[in-house]
Amino acid sequence: MVVDIKQKSKFNLQPIHQRVSVTFNYGVYFTKNLFELKNPTLAQVITADGETKPKKVVAIVDAGILQHQPELVKQLVAYTNFYAEIVAIAAEPMIISGGEAAKNDRTLVDQIQQQIEAAGLCRHCYVLAIGGGAVLDLVGYAAATAHRGIRLIRVPTTVLAQNDSGVGVKNGINAFGKKNFLGTFAPPYAVINDSAFLTSLDDRDWRSGIAEAVKVALIKDASFFDFIHSHSAALARRDMDTMQQVIYRCAQLHLEHIANSGDPFEMGSSRPLDFGHWAAHKLEHLTNYRLRHGEAVAIGIALDSTYSYLVGLLDCSQWQRILSTLSALGFTLYVPELVEKLSQLEHPHCLFRGLTEFREHLGGELTLMLLQRIGKGVEVHEVDLFLYRQAISLLQGF
Amino acid sequence: MVVDIKQKSKFNLQPIHQRVSVTFNYGVYFTKNLFELKNPTLAQVITADGETKPKKVVAIVDAGILQHQPELVKQLVAYTNFYAEIVAIAAEPMIISGGEAAKNDRTLVDQIQQQIEAAGLCRHCYVLAIGGGAVLDLVGYAAATAHRGIRLIRVPTTVLAQNDSGVGVKNGINAFGKKNFLGTFAPPYAVINDSAFLTSLDDRDWRSGIAEAVKVALIKDASFFDFIHSHSAALARRDMDTMQQVIYRCAQLHLEHIANSGDPFEMGSSRPLDFGHWAAHKLEHLTNYRLRHGEAVAIGIALDSTYSYLVGLLDCSQWQRILSTLSALGFTLYVPELVEKLSQLEHPHCLFRGLTEFREHLGGELTLMLLQRIGKGVEVHEVDLFLYRQAISLLQGF
Repeated sequence: MVVDIKQKSKFNLQPIHQRVSVTFNYGVYFTKNLFELKNPTLAQVITADGETKPKKVVAIVDAGILQHQPELVKQLVAYTNFYAEIVAIAAEPMIISGGEAAKNDRTLVDQIQQQIEAAGLCRHCYVLAIGGGAVLDLVGYAAATAHRGIRLIRVPTTVLAQNDSGVGVKNGINAFGKKNFLGTFAPPYAVINDSAFLTSLDDRDWRSGIAEAVKVALIKDASFFDFIHSHSAALARRDMDTMQQVIYRCAQLHLEHIANSGDPFEMGSSRPLDFGHWAAHKLEHLTNYRLRHGEAVAIGIALDSTYSYLVGLLDCSQWQRILSTLSALGFTLYVPELVEKLSQLEHPHCLFRGLTEFREHLGGELTLMLLQRIGKGVEVHEVDLFLYRQAISLLQGF
Repeated sequence: MVVDIKQKSKFNLQPIHQRVSVTFNYGVYFTKNLFELKNPTLAQVITADGETKPKKVVAIVDAGILQHQPELVKQLVAYTNFYAEIVAIAAEPMIISGGEAAKNDRTLVDQIQQQIEAAGLCRHCYVLAIGGGAVLDLVGYAAATAHRGIRLIRVPTTVLAQNDSGVGVKNGINAFGKKNFLGTFAPPYAVINDSAFLTSLDDRDWRSGIAEAVKVALIKDASFFDFIHSHSAALARRDMDTMQQVIYRCAQLHLEHIANSGDPFEMGSSRPLDFGHWAAHKLEHLTNYRLRHGEAVAIGIALDSTYSYLVGLLDCSQWQRILSTLSALGFTLYVPELVEKLSQLEHPHCLFRGLTEFREHLGGELTLMLLQRIGKGVEVHEVDLFLYRQAISLLQGF
């Protein structure tokens, strides 16, 4: 029997074609000392919807911040007391341990949702997430799936979260050994970047966040890369004013990409902002998260830039400029996990398995971003593993 | 200290305003005997994206269907074998017990996601959910949160799912004793309504599904209500052709509402398609799901129509016409749980607690849909509990 699947089926009534358009609006605010009573930013964000009754808020705080700002929870409660006509804290703020490990613990999502339920939050109430990217991802997932989405205000406290993940439209936790296996696309209600949090970061976290700025500069904006290149010493010695400019521009490019890509929820195959990320995700896993995300991204960028050079896309001087900028920022560009089991393509510890996992996570055919030149990415759908091995050797020798 | 929250904060850099628009397209197909090899509908749906390689599918089947169609899984596998160039079944189809109880079991979501992971599904692969509304809600939640959303093809097998929940943009499971506490807004990739499934429904399920049609007719389309009214005997004696017309029109109205309401993901306060639902949700819970959803909705419609009459919105003859239509369809319009603990407003078994829970779930102020006349709903934000008690008495006497 042969069935021509292009023929109109005799079995069917006329199908109904449904088209649903949804628009999300949110502000990304830049401030300092968010919970100082004189700082109206948070109160302004909460009153912006025009509703008049005080809104319930459940707050989740990254324990890492409290080491440096032990008074934070007290300040937060004092702030809500001061603005009691606008906001009502609905439960004792919940403290959770941050870092990637938090995203492996699904009971944390349960606990947050239980608190949301117990506090009687509705969809017009707020979940306030204060912390690094992992805490924001985790809390975001809990908020997005409670009542099919409670308003989430993100207060990212790291460079990485302020310039990249914290301003975007994703959340997620790890499951079944896979990074971000569970999650949703859910734009926040607002993002508030408070620069005061950055002073207490350790050097590794300060530096890590710059990797995403380098990434987006390389594929989108050559003059931004020039800025990072010429300010790499200032960034390495933690000049806050320079960092603020880097964060602002990186957040802006990230937001523009989401808004203008035509596919903010990544239903198609294109995700050019993932430059360097296939290897980064795999390396985080292979190093048991000894590498922070940004450190892994820096290696991923170095690797894919080197491959771009070897495959004839990127010229030699630009390639070297990228590697020297990453070095000047303080990044290490090689770890032994790059070569572990490299010849055993099916071995779970083989770096190249990261390509398959990347494709599976994104869906569709393999799509990698490479560099044509600084400021200009290009997508490819096939890779030459021999050249990738050479790229790894070059990094090892660098 | 007084802070004028309307002033521009001196703390802040210029905020970035982000606007993200997402458009979802999906088809709702009507067919008969979906897994007959000659029926190309499913194959057409899967090839519509233009990608050429066979796509992996994980199938989840409601155990309830297998009682009447024990060959279904075999047919499904034969179908995928026949269309092997288009679709590849990636795992043994998973059978789950349907009905509302399934939505209380969070381990089912885990199991489905584990199967998705084990089968290596990517975002461009398919989860095929075959079953009643509860199974579709549950599988939809699992699919929407795996890899941040795997394509979901819904095959609703009940009247209720074919004309209402199965064509919409929601999923969810129950948690912490609250219906649909966990879930997302996630449009399906496609919906395929197969009329052959309806012949095996028991009388209660056949009838239940009509409640949503009555609901949408009452608030949106008087001539559709006339159709249901004049065909109530045919529907009660299970005339399939009449039922198909009811399902088609109901699905159409539902889809139009979602597309044109301006708020498909219910971020604001308006949800006019929830007529009769505050009481229905509560009654399902109070009766430990002895009432099916549609049966509870019929009572909710009767109650809110009666209240609309008592409050002076709906005229007497229209009110009586509504109640007699529901009766002619075979619905019971009173259960003792309506009056249990009715005077103890804070008691969890008090029907009126359903108003608070409804408000909490939707967010913002209380918004109830009432009837101005048949075919025309109207929103109110306050209720008179004394009149609601009277409405319950009238139903008891009806």
